[in-house]
Amino acid sequence: MESSQFPSLLFFLLTAAFLAVAAAGRDLTGDHLRLPSQAERFFREPENDDNVQGTRWAILLAGSSGYWNYRHQADVCHAYQILRQGGLKEENIIVFMYDDIAYNEENPRQGVIINKPDGGDVYEGVPKDYTGADVTASNFYAALLGNKSALTGGSGKVVDSGPNDHIFVYYTDHGGPGVLGMPAGPYLYAEDLIEVLKKKHASGTYKSLVFYLEACESGSIFEGLLPEDINIYATTASNAEESSWGTYCPGEYPSPPPEYTTCLGDLYSVAWMEDSDIHNLRTESLHQQYKLVKDRTISGSEYYGSHVMQYGDIGLSSNHLFLYLGTNPSNDNITFVDENSLRTPSKAVNQRDADLVHFWDKFRKSPEGSRRKNAAQKQVLEAMSHRMHVDNSVELIGKLLFGIEKGPEVFKSVRPAGLPLVDDWVCLKNMVRTFETHCGSLSQYGMKHMRSFANICNAGIQNEQMTEASSQACVSVPANPWSSLQRGFSA
Amino acid sequence: MESSQFPSLLFFLLTAAFLAVAAAGRDLTGDHLRLPSQAERFFREPENDDNVQGTRWAILLAGSSGYWNYRHQADVCHAYQILRQGGLKEENIIVFMYDDIAYNEENPRQGVIINKPDGGDVYEGVPKDYTGADVTASNFYAALLGNKSALTGGSGKVVDSGPNDHIFVYYTDHGGPGVLGMPAGPYLYAEDLIEVLKKKHASGTYKSLVFYLEACESGSIFEGLLPEDINIYATTASNAEESSWGTYCPGEYPSPPPEYTTCLGDLYSVAWMEDSDIHNLRTESLHQQYKLVKDRTISGSEYYGSHVMQYGDIGLSSNHLFLYLGTNPSNDNITFVDENSLRTPSKAVNQRDADLVHFWDKFRKSPEGSRRKNAAQKQVLEAMSHRMHVDNSVELIGKLLFGIEKGPEVFKSVRPAGLPLVDDWVCLKNMVRTFETHCGSLSQYGMKHMRSFANICNAGIQNEQMTEASSQACVSVPANPWSSLQRGFSA
Repeated sequence: MESSQFPSLLFFLLTAAFLAVAAAGRDLTGDHLRLPSQAERFFREPENDDNVQGTRWAILLAGSSGYWNYRHQADVCHAYQILRQGGLKEENIIVFMYDDIAYNEENPRQGVIINKPDGGDVYEGVPKDYTGADVTASNFYAALLGNKSALTGGSGKVVDSGPNDHIFVYYTDHGGPGVLGMPAGPYLYAEDLIEVLKKKHASGTYKSLVFYLEACESGSIFEGLLPEDINIYATTASNAEESSWGTYCPGEYPSPPPEYTTCLGDLYSVAWMEDSDIHNLRTESLHQQYKLVKDRTISGSEYYGSHVMQYGDIGLSSNHLFLYLGTNPSNDNITFVDENSLRTPSKAVNQRDADLVHFWDKFRKSPEGSRRKNAAQKQVLEAMSHRMHVDNSVELIGKLLFGIEKGPEVFKSVRPAGLPLVDDWVCLKNMVRTFETHCGSLSQYGMKHMRSFANICNAGIQNEQMTEASSQACVSVPANPWSSLQRGFSA
Repeated sequence: MESSQFPSLLFFLLTAAFLAVAAAGRDLTGDHLRLPSQAERFFREPENDDNVQGTRWAILLAGSSGYWNYRHQADVCHAYQILRQGGLKEENIIVFMYDDIAYNEENPRQGVIINKPDGGDVYEGVPKDYTGADVTASNFYAALLGNKSALTGGSGKVVDSGPNDHIFVYYTDHGGPGVLGMPAGPYLYAEDLIEVLKKKHASGTYKSLVFYLEACESGSIFEGLLPEDINIYATTASNAEESSWGTYCPGEYPSPPPEYTTCLGDLYSVAWMEDSDIHNLRTESLHQQYKLVKDRTISGSEYYGSHVMQYGDIGLSSNHLFLYLGTNPSNDNITFVDENSLRTPSKAVNQRDADLVHFWDKFRKSPEGSRRKNAAQKQVLEAMSHRMHVDNSVELIGKLLFGIEKGPEVFKSVRPAGLPLVDDWVCLKNMVRTFETHCGSLSQYGMKHMRSFANICNAGIQNEQMTEASSQACVSVPANPWSSLQRGFSA
């Protein structure tokens, strides 16, 4: 090729490539092919940011309790501070958090919650809208729908939004295929959430809604379920088949201050928040943040990290973050941000192991022979016993239902991309209930087995067979706090 | 005081202080008061090193097995290399090691053992004198006494020493008050060892003997037991009441290479060996090494480290190390050693927790859902269950024997310095046997309770009462490998 032809050919190729990608409406990051029904959405103008009509609303929800889950409530408190600094009013931010962290006896800084090793307090000023036993899936639905009469307990604050309003929802906790944890009451099931979102859309009480979701297998909450035409854009910490990750954990780098025995944040969550902390959000789009968060969360290590995903109305991602989070005036003049300052930690902890990391760190740091060391030892023991019990029971049930060889195969099978976890969600809930009746609580760890229960339904197994298999697999429920059904069924 | 009087007064005071100390024959390091029967020993000339008469002998013994105890066999292999480089002949070095490390399936470098993170192989050339089931206390005694007919298995190599010979004994493993672990057969009991040492002395087959001992509560092996007049000098990793420490452990600093899930060495052991590696041992005395090892092993941290102690004929410590270890010719011209190169690690692991650190590191590093992760989880669980079972059983027995309030008090009481752990060692062995008959094996962790069993004897409790209390405290023996008596009783 002669050198004079090169520039024009390059231009042609680049143009063609751009048009091809844009016309197909693909997610430009390439890992996820989307074919939205309305391709023109990708070309619409972003909202005129400085003239936002309507109100910004937000719901922030930490789905866990317990000091070993410190990080989820720390995430939510941090998110609250971002929104307040962005200009949202307290009356428009609804916070769900168990609120057992700041004054937890394990907390080395009483009354203070931090979300990164050198970070300041993020707890101050956070409203206690829904705390303790009021942090339930049904209260979350009622708050989102603006349905005050459906609330039980709490401050009564709901998303009382109108047609021009923008809503931001951020949830962080443990999850499993098709489910998200809740510190009180049953889990949140994906189908119920989707129904609530559809209902909210049908009520005409928002212009757009953005959902940021941190949990294990969080992609499964939206995969094949979230419509593309209800003005909702969601990103998730992981795809439908993988763990999400805690960060700033003891023994990892960067570590929390030495007096902390627990992880301070989650990988995806701190990625979007530490990005939002330092940018002028008038000029950063949802898509830009998605890319940045995705890069940081994948980590590049073979040992940890997850694939951040996007779902729903991808076209909305051309909107600026300002439309949802506002922007901190002190970032107005920031024109350049050194992305290296958003450190990718060199190690991280699988959400499901983070409780063990806490118990272990407590065990290792306690003086030999102390009451505290003995207590930590008991906690490691109970958590691990529970895990083995749940894993063994589920495996045994699979073999009883499908045979010794086929059982594990059926339980692990993953439906093709774009299909939801299960078609019959009532069946899934029944299977979970039957399991827990005979084998004890799944607890946060046990959520990982949701795909197995879903596959029991997908295989057309009847509840009678599941009852028989469960009662044979679990002769008794182990006497430890994780297996106890004291806090109720998960479904 | 007029200034002209000051120098002479100072001189007087210093002289008086020196004489007082020297006359009392005190250990100059101050932590340990000794009143040897023959104070003049402190002033005798060191042996004429370059004209050593007689032969140097050594026994090296690693008392453990299992990959989680990698460090003990690594220590022993390292010691072997030092002695060989020092000029000792293979025929004069008797090695006891279980030999399940180099080709252990967990070992990332098959056939290689290292004793520090950047260290080379120390396994090559180590003779397999007593391995596997032949690593017993009785074979150790027989080898030391030169009593071939008492051996069972092994190479038959023994310390066939004469009256001008010098003997070096180095033991490294878990221990407990009054006992040292052995990978096969019953534990080594302090009184038996002392009897063997006296017998060896009585046979007139050594000129001096140096005993280096790494184990938890290792001071208790010699405290109040080792005579000062049998030409034996001993140092121990810890005093009679504290743990000794593993080092180069996963998650600590310095860490082993990332593919290692186990500690590579022990704090006291690497201190004497890394010192011996780089010094001209013709010019370094036992006392100088004692001081250096003591400084490094105490660590200065409130969280770890132990008090290195010396026992027996302290006067011998003016001898040069050369008399026992020889010296590596390549160190001949070393006149200055930067002691900072002998790093004190910033963290270390209690001997008793080192197995858990291995299981935990294996658990954390294994891929989610892998067979390896499940196996590691089971190992953590079994080790911790065993610990809780042993701790609870012993505590309960104490309360049954002495009452709810007085039980823990009696079990924890420590006899005054200079007194042995127990007067009636047969009683101690009987108590251990009775406990294990009803409650299962103590295992390496359970050795920590030896003081409680000793105090049962010291309180005059009869074996019938112990039998009754043990059978009431332990209705059954838990089914896990640590509690299993498959490997026999500890006494």
